[in-house]
Amino acid sequence: MSLIVQKYGGSSVADAESIKRVAKRIVQTRKAGNEVVVVVSAMGDTTDELLDLAGQVTPLPEPRELDMLLTAGERISMALLAMTIKGMGVDARSFTGSQAGMITDARHGAARIVDVTPVRLREALDAGAIAIVAGFQGFSRETMDITTLGRGGSDTTAVALAAALGAEVCEIYTDVDGVFTADPRVVTKATKIERITSEEMLELAAAGSKVLYIRAVEYARRHGVTIHVRSSFSNSPGTYVYNPKDGETVEEPIIAGVAADLNEAKITIVDVPDIPGKAAEIFTLVATTGANIDMIVQNVSAAATGRTDISFTLPKAEGLRVMQALETQKDRIGFSTLQFDDQIGKLALVGAGMRTNAGVSAKLFTALYEAGINIEMISTSEIRISVVTRADTINDAVRVVHTAFGLDGEQDAVVYAGTGR
Amino acid sequence: MSLIVQKYGGSSVADAESIKRVAKRIVQTRKAGNEVVVVVSAMGDTTDELLDLAGQVTPLPEPRELDMLLTAGERISMALLAMTIKGMGVDARSFTGSQAGMITDARHGAARIVDVTPVRLREALDAGAIAIVAGFQGFSRETMDITTLGRGGSDTTAVALAAALGAEVCEIYTDVDGVFTADPRVVTKATKIERITSEEMLELAAAGSKVLYIRAVEYARRHGVTIHVRSSFSNSPGTYVYNPKDGETVEEPIIAGVAADLNEAKITIVDVPDIPGKAAEIFTLVATTGANIDMIVQNVSAAATGRTDISFTLPKAEGLRVMQALETQKDRIGFSTLQFDDQIGKLALVGAGMRTNAGVSAKLFTALYEAGINIEMISTSEIRISVVTRADTINDAVRVVHTAFGLDGEQDAVVYAGTGR
Repeated sequence: MSLIVQKYGGSSVADAESIKRVAKRIVQTRKAGNEVVVVVSAMGDTTDELLDLAGQVTPLPEPRELDMLLTAGERISMALLAMTIKGMGVDARSFTGSQAGMITDARHGAARIVDVTPVRLREALDAGAIAIVAGFQGFSRETMDITTLGRGGSDTTAVALAAALGAEVCEIYTDVDGVFTADPRVVTKATKIERITSEEMLELAAAGSKVLYIRAVEYARRHGVTIHVRSSFSNSPGTYVYNPKDGETVEEPIIAGVAADLNEAKITIVDVPDIPGKAAEIFTLVATTGANIDMIVQNVSAAATGRTDISFTLPKAEGLRVMQALETQKDRIGFSTLQFDDQIGKLALVGAGMRTNAGVSAKLFTALYEAGINIEMISTSEIRISVVTRADTINDAVRVVHTAFGLDGEQDAVVYAGTGR
Repeated sequence: MSLIVQKYGGSSVADAESIKRVAKRIVQTRKAGNEVVVVVSAMGDTTDELLDLAGQVTPLPEPRELDMLLTAGERISMALLAMTIKGMGVDARSFTGSQAGMITDARHGAARIVDVTPVRLREALDAGAIAIVAGFQGFSRETMDITTLGRGGSDTTAVALAAALGAEVCEIYTDVDGVFTADPRVVTKATKIERITSEEMLELAAAGSKVLYIRAVEYARRHGVTIHVRSSFSNSPGTYVYNPKDGETVEEPIIAGVAADLNEAKITIVDVPDIPGKAAEIFTLVATTGANIDMIVQNVSAAATGRTDISFTLPKAEGLRVMQALETQKDRIGFSTLQFDDQIGKLALVGAGMRTNAGVSAKLFTALYEAGINIEMISTSEIRISVVTRADTINDAVRVVHTAFGLDGEQDAVVYAGTGR
């Protein structure tokens, strides 16, 4: 008998009808002879509604109380799901994060998992029941308080339970068919990826693919969990995110996919003294703001002036904070002006095959050049090349790159209403 | 420093504005130098909305899962209240029933309290914080599961914590000014009762007064807790429900108040053989339906026939079930017909002073007779007289009795919109 962990997001359990539909799928999995653990998010917009209520009573909610508040969301969905399955004549029991043994540190709102002890889930499974677990939430042994893992935490709960219980696969149900070679809303010929390594998936997620949360993929990679991303609206297989064994030859396509991100902005620090330690000084300062810096580019120094420009990208929402921090240290750093540009787009080409295939960058740059798209920044990792272009050219850029690397499918991809999440 | 337990019902925390208003009152109590424990119900109609959702997914929700579902309601209100108080700069911490040490048996939906161990509340109080506790919910040590105490459970939670923590008083906040000598919507001259014994309060609650739940009053009586029922919309004192010490002379008015109940129906079993054991047979059968029988009257047997009629009252909602049960056993019991009458009203006159004051019944019957109101059934306890009349005469009956016993006040009582709960 294999053990399968299934995770259903908020849109899959948005109302009574959706919950009944999901319950049927879970019961089918159980009746096919599997042990089933289900991780569930809060219904539809519940979390946002609770956050809104919190905002109405106080401008800066106490993190401990905010966690207490938000965990009510999964409590509702898991209880409804369990009673629906029970009503279908199949044994099911719901468990809070705490009851499921999701032990975390005490960092409210962004708790890290420190231990997973699913004793009660194992007991329920041994008794023949389906275990329904609240995603997103945990329990701190240190403070005896309820915690949450932060947005996307339900994916992480599912992967962590799959690891702790030795599940065969962790199925993440969403409202798209799987991971695509590019966003099907932009590239109509985008094709569903059947198999992708967790390393590639990490790069795609970091580059803007929203199907899986980076944190869950990282956890899966570290603990050897296979993820199956699939649609809760169909029975067709989705995308397997797997971990190749050491030395295993990955006979996969060179390129896994193309991702685009329009949520970043670029800050340029103009006329910085080109002396050792300057970059360290700047980014130590930026780090104090807690901003997530992505790409960094330093122009070649103009020999005559001994000064240089430094550009970096970061999420738009963090722009103002970082600009202010830099401005206060203008004299100490010694730059002349700051430029803020939120009209950029970032394209990332990801593929484990890049490691051993020369010419990938050349092909990428050529495709963009032939389409008349200007490249403003470049950064690379072992299995990823990212470029920054003007925001209004990013969709064209994704399409030409998708075609250039032979990723276009025969047919147009099916795009559901309200796709993405 | 005295410890005060305050309980706020759903209408007192129905939205963000109400929560802020309640938070101010709690902070005032704390700043007046008291230790404060607050018990809170779910916001407004949350519980009914959750029950409705459950009904949408399955006709007969599993009790364990229903408890898991419903307890989300108080989790939301207590977290919002705690963060509101925190936002006002006063330390506050919320606790679930389980965290507050409300240990119950495992009877889901109607759990009984078996132990109260408010260790974490005591710690929070010692640290100078206000403790906010979810009402209505508990935890079974036996099954390690979450339980609920049933409707009105929040009052019981408050009284139980007041007992366990040795509180000076348990304040139950509601949307009326206190307990009245009669329903102010019926008797305009009804007056607020300043002090009433828990014994009298029990009889009033059993007779239809909806201000306090019987169970909470019973708990308070058994554990010597003083309850102060008051309005969350004003600062004036409400009604103290107290426990006279042994031998204490109760120098209170003879009559505490008049209550009326229109939710009962009467079943009459016609032509029952008047032989020993027949009543036992009938009410053993009725007991198997779980119905709550109130008054029972057996007519004098007609000597010629050797047969009698037996009437009893019960909540209307339970009528059909009991009628069906009796009908199936018609031949065995040997009656001729069943009559169902849901047009009755029950009036109860309550007062500890009755014990030592003769003539109370005579005065009651005379007042009703003079008003032309017919009495259909009579039942008495040591401190209560109940009579059944036609439903459409019950309000007149309450008014004439209220006047006859000198309970009318000088001024009309203030009736709030949406009074009662």
